[in-house]
Amino acid sequence: MSASAYDGLCRHFQQIAHFEHFSALGDWDQATMMPVGGGEARSEAMATLAGHIHALKTAPWLAEALDKARAEAQNDDERANLREMAHQYRQATAVPQSLVEAKTLAGYRCENAWREQRRANDWQGFKPKLEEVIRLTREEAQCRSQALGMTPYDTLLDKFEPGVTQAMLDNTFGELKNWLPELIAEVTDLQLGQAVPQLSGHYPIPAQEALGREVMTLLGFDFNQGRLDVSNHPFCGGVPGDVRLTTRYDSNNFSSALMGVIHETGHARYEQGLPKAWRGQPGGLARSMGLHESQSLFFEMQLAGSEAFLGLLSPLINRHLGLQLSAEGLARIYSRVNPGLIRVDADEVTYPCHILLRYEAEKAMVNGSLEVADLPDFWSTQMQTLLGINTDGNYRDGCMQDIHWTLGELGYFPSYTLGAMVASQLRYALEAELDSSLDSLLEQGRLADVFAWLERNIWSRGSLLQTDDLIQAATGKPLSGRYLERHLRSRYLGE
Amino acid sequence: MSASAYDGLCRHFQQIAHFEHFSALGDWDQATMMPVGGGEARSEAMATLAGHIHALKTAPWLAEALDKARAEAQNDDERANLREMAHQYRQATAVPQSLVEAKTLAGYRCENAWREQRRANDWQGFKPKLEEVIRLTREEAQCRSQALGMTPYDTLLDKFEPGVTQAMLDNTFGELKNWLPELIAEVTDLQLGQAVPQLSGHYPIPAQEALGREVMTLLGFDFNQGRLDVSNHPFCGGVPGDVRLTTRYDSNNFSSALMGVIHETGHARYEQGLPKAWRGQPGGLARSMGLHESQSLFFEMQLAGSEAFLGLLSPLINRHLGLQLSAEGLARIYSRVNPGLIRVDADEVTYPCHILLRYEAEKAMVNGSLEVADLPDFWSTQMQTLLGINTDGNYRDGCMQDIHWTLGELGYFPSYTLGAMVASQLRYALEAELDSSLDSLLEQGRLADVFAWLERNIWSRGSLLQTDDLIQAATGKPLSGRYLERHLRSRYLGE
Ligand SMILES: [Zn+2]
Ligand SMILES: [Zn+2]
Repeated sequence: MSASAYDGLCRHFQQIAHFEHFSALGDWDQATMMPVGGGEARSEAMATLAGHIHALKTAPWLAEALDKARAEAQNDDERANLREMAHQYRQATAVPQSLVEAKTLAGYRCENAWREQRRANDWQGFKPKLEEVIRLTREEAQCRSQALGMTPYDTLLDKFEPGVTQAMLDNTFGELKNWLPELIAEVTDLQLGQAVPQLSGHYPIPAQEALGREVMTLLGFDFNQGRLDVSNHPFCGGVPGDVRLTTRYDSNNFSSALMGVIHETGHARYEQGLPKAWRGQPGGLARSMGLHESQSLFFEMQLAGSEAFLGLLSPLINRHLGLQLSAEGLARIYSRVNPGLIRVDADEVTYPCHILLRYEAEKAMVNGSLEVADLPDFWSTQMQTLLGINTDGNYRDGCMQDIHWTLGELGYFPSYTLGAMVASQLRYALEAELDSSLDSLLEQGRLADVFAWLERNIWSRGSLLQTDDLIQAATGKPLSGRYLERHLRSRYLGE
Repeated sequence: MSASAYDGLCRHFQQIAHFEHFSALGDWDQATMMPVGGGEARSEAMATLAGHIHALKTAPWLAEALDKARAEAQNDDERANLREMAHQYRQATAVPQSLVEAKTLAGYRCENAWREQRRANDWQGFKPKLEEVIRLTREEAQCRSQALGMTPYDTLLDKFEPGVTQAMLDNTFGELKNWLPELIAEVTDLQLGQAVPQLSGHYPIPAQEALGREVMTLLGFDFNQGRLDVSNHPFCGGVPGDVRLTTRYDSNNFSSALMGVIHETGHARYEQGLPKAWRGQPGGLARSMGLHESQSLFFEMQLAGSEAFLGLLSPLINRHLGLQLSAEGLARIYSRVNPGLIRVDADEVTYPCHILLRYEAEKAMVNGSLEVADLPDFWSTQMQTLLGINTDGNYRDGCMQDIHWTLGELGYFPSYTLGAMVASQLRYALEAELDSSLDSLLEQGRLADVFAWLERNIWSRGSLLQTDDLIQAATGKPLSGRYLERHLRSRYLGE
């Protein structure tokens, strides 16, 4: 231990980051590379690793060291780092190590089974595995609730979105419900007569992959510090110097993989742009999952949804895939609103409905008013109400479509819609500060200015500011859902 | 802690295996997948992980628990497992954790630099990194020597080949030197006038890879429990349920990749065939690196060098690569003795010379009579003496060709030649027991019987027998180099 409590803490959390390095590697490898036979050993190893990280985060000497270090702290950044350490310590001490290990083991086993079971639409096989994960997640939420003095579901939200509560979400999502259904109806009505270029065809996967890589490069991804691979659920993992993103290919439809790549590249640039001086420290981590999704959705929706960006994209698509699409044609494709089964393929207008459904299901599963056995019916009813789609018997594209719950990650889904709200708010702030619309910036070839703005205001700040302060500092205003509404009305209704 | 000291130890070593799972994954990923930018974070994380594994293996309660458990032990297998635990404990306690971490960090940094520096033949850039690794390896050997009461180099041998000493190797390799140079001269003389089919051509890598996979399947590799990938130094890694092997491709020469695949598949089957009931326990590990190489060399030299096996191989080669090679033609290619620069591409007759050279260099580097700066000259002189080849200025294919020393793995190389000796001895024992030559067995389609014999006598025994006992049990005789001599004289001189 050094003379300084702060230095000792920094070394300790650096060690934790080293173990989390392997947790990230194990996750990525499991999704992209691992043969089925490796599943059981990996699940057990991940559980042991999670238990060890938990033990490090709950080391008994931390409480006193944190107190001492607070008295020593030299500046706001150190204080922020200590605040994040204390947050991790509080989060970890709320749950016993045995539960962390049991939930990790059940989660990875469930995820491993899910890969095959989802493909086979095998709800009956999947159900007991998910039940075990939900049982342990309820237990986790109870422990956290007792330790932290919050409601069980709030403690899960707090893992992914520190400071956000169910009360706040009920309010925010409640407002959304006031205007979204009508907006969807208006837009689908308006688009009813519009012709859209047909994209069906055969697109060889190597060509799609080459296209994806070129688009990633256009978006500033550094391949010396990351990779692109394939997994059946796209994600962005790895560590800041080695960011691993994935997509999945459909040889009849290039768009899904391409938009997946653009989305994940947003996550990747956030990770690659985190402050290097703070690597390995809690203060240097991405702020929250909502902030993370705000970056991916900025890339996927704000950027890639704009006709000016599609003007950069169309020559690449045409060259790699032998097509002759115009930017205007692509814009018509990508602004097409079409209620569908799959969240990750949803357009930005109907996307929040997928989240509202999952949010209600999560809350109910955590408080015990919804059992796993009743999830398919709940799903079907909600999909019918929100999007007019029947999912009876289609588990694969219904409640088995996402990876999150298999791992016990309840409380994550709201981050997507919070992220969409933040992304819209950031865009308006960026346009105001640069005194130019995003479209004009792109037409002037100022893509780099857009990234520089995001890097300055979001990426380089890590977790040194708390979410509210970060959004206030970046946009001059507190988080609000009205920018998303304004954005959607502007893009889809021309208001 | 359970009532039984033995059970407590088993759980503890199972935990260690879980952390070693990530060490194996990190190694594999670094060699096959990791972008350059990930190197520094990986090196640091690997060092922390190695330090943690070391801490677990040196836990103060182990000594007493081992004593208690010895008194409780129910049977020979439990006693063997305890013997292996005690061996790991002794090995670990001989070295301080700080040195383990420092050497791991320096080793991974050196390996990361080596990938590019070897390609560039950059000895000057590589030298200081290797010097640091050798300095720490000497320090390690000194610590081990003091703790274990063995000479420094013997302690390094003991890491890879428990029980083997320099005195024994000086003797064994001394005998080898008595007959090998003359044998090489005789064989090369004999082969001087023999025509060998030309293999130069263009062999697309996807076709080579498909061929490799089919050959792996022929050799019983289970792709549900492993993978084949590319790295610039072929190896077999991963864990028993998820064995990861690699090769590297040369589009002008399919043979090097193919023989690499066959060699590594031998390692892989050993790992896949280890006793499932003992997974995660020291008693369930592969016995030693020499035993490991005996399996890979059994596959590469004994099996794949036999004309009967080449009769199985040639239709696959011809189909994938569009060739028309006969088994007899392949046999002439693969039995060609040709002194060359590269160890991993060497024929089995000249291969031991590559080991003799490295053995002498290692000994001298560890005892301080050879400095890294003088290694290229030492190399060139020895290559001249042993194989008549000048390597002046060619560091890339000289002393920079292998990965082992970059990681500080001095003491490993002798295992290759011990493995070749064991492989020959096993073949003669197998032939005696099955009352049929290996060639006849293959001609009768009894490849499965060959694998079953290896599984029964070697793979399934893990580390439950010590090396001497394992060889004695499998072959009825102690390890001897004369079977290798007999094999080489028979195959290459028809004696
Ligand atoms: Zn995302
Ligand atoms: Zn080998």
